[in-house]
Amino acid sequence: MKKAIQDYYPENFSHCYGCGKNNPDGHHLKSYLDSEEVVARFTPAAKYTGGVPNHVYGGMVASLLDCHGAASAAGFTYRAQNREPGDDGAPIRFVTASLKVDYLRPTPIGVELLLTGKLRSLEGRKVWVDLSLAADGVTCAKGEMLAILVRE
Amino acid sequence: MKKAIQDYYPENFSHCYGCGKNNPDGHHLKSYLDSEEVVARFTPAAKYTGGVPNHVYGGMVASLLDCHGAASAAGFTYRAQNREPGDDGAPIRFVTASLKVDYLRPTPIGVELLLTGKLRSLEGRKVWVDLSLAADGVTCAKGEMLAILVRE
Repeated sequence: MKKAIQDYYPENFSHCYGCGKNNPDGHHLKSYLDSEEVVARFTPAAKYTGGVPNHVYGGMVASLLDCHGAASAAGFTYRAQNREPGDDGAPIRFVTASLKVDYLRPTPIGVELLLTGKLRSLEGRKVWVDLSLAADGVTCAKGEMLAILVRE
Repeated sequence: MKKAIQDYYPENFSHCYGCGKNNPDGHHLKSYLDSEEVVARFTPAAKYTGGVPNHVYGGMVASLLDCHGAASAAGFTYRAQNREPGDDGAPIRFVTASLKVDYLRPTPIGVELLLTGKLRSLEGRKVWVDLSLAADGVTCAKGEMLAILVRE
């Protein structure tokens, strides 16, 4: 099975509750570099409801976009450097400097959500990523992130 | 003990994982209208680490600001209408239209976080709130939110 971008984060940077493989309690979001974008799929458990039952709470939407955006930035940076995650070079890890989320409509719960990240621009250690979260083909939230490469 | 803004949300809007009193699994964030601002205090459990242990993951920071911002919008609206939460009028509940979070520095874990919300503007059903999250007196994240009043 193909490994996710997060599976190649440095060990000491793999404890994120949202996506770290070394956090036993977390969500373990897995993001994959596709041809032109980075994609992830995630189905929030029923308890992560928003104010109204049957919809995902806003914090979960932001959390998924945040982790996926940082992974997207790493994926696009590997590609820009003609590298592959897991190669002999230093692992690439980004952190979030800024995240904006637009909640377009309520996100249904119990449905697999599709997260996508698209590269807006890459400038040195700064990467801007455009994000979206969709359920059953309908976009429920959009995001934009500025991510910063962690120095080794 | 003084009840929080979230404790007065309508029953059918009180299931939020982040702050709903009717969600048995959630964080139960409690926000209080002070003289000029809305404040909340919350200490994330150790498991909510970011990539690096000993710091809070970005999704939790966004989640706390999101719930606190929506409560702040409700608090400011009660005040603008010369009302009090729990009075005889219809309960006020906002949802998030847009949230931007700037991560200024890592947020330490195991420390009580102070959330503040300040009113930027209030225009019909739309309320803009400026948010901050501080640990030990140091601001770790800033936020801005556009919240929309839920129609009954």
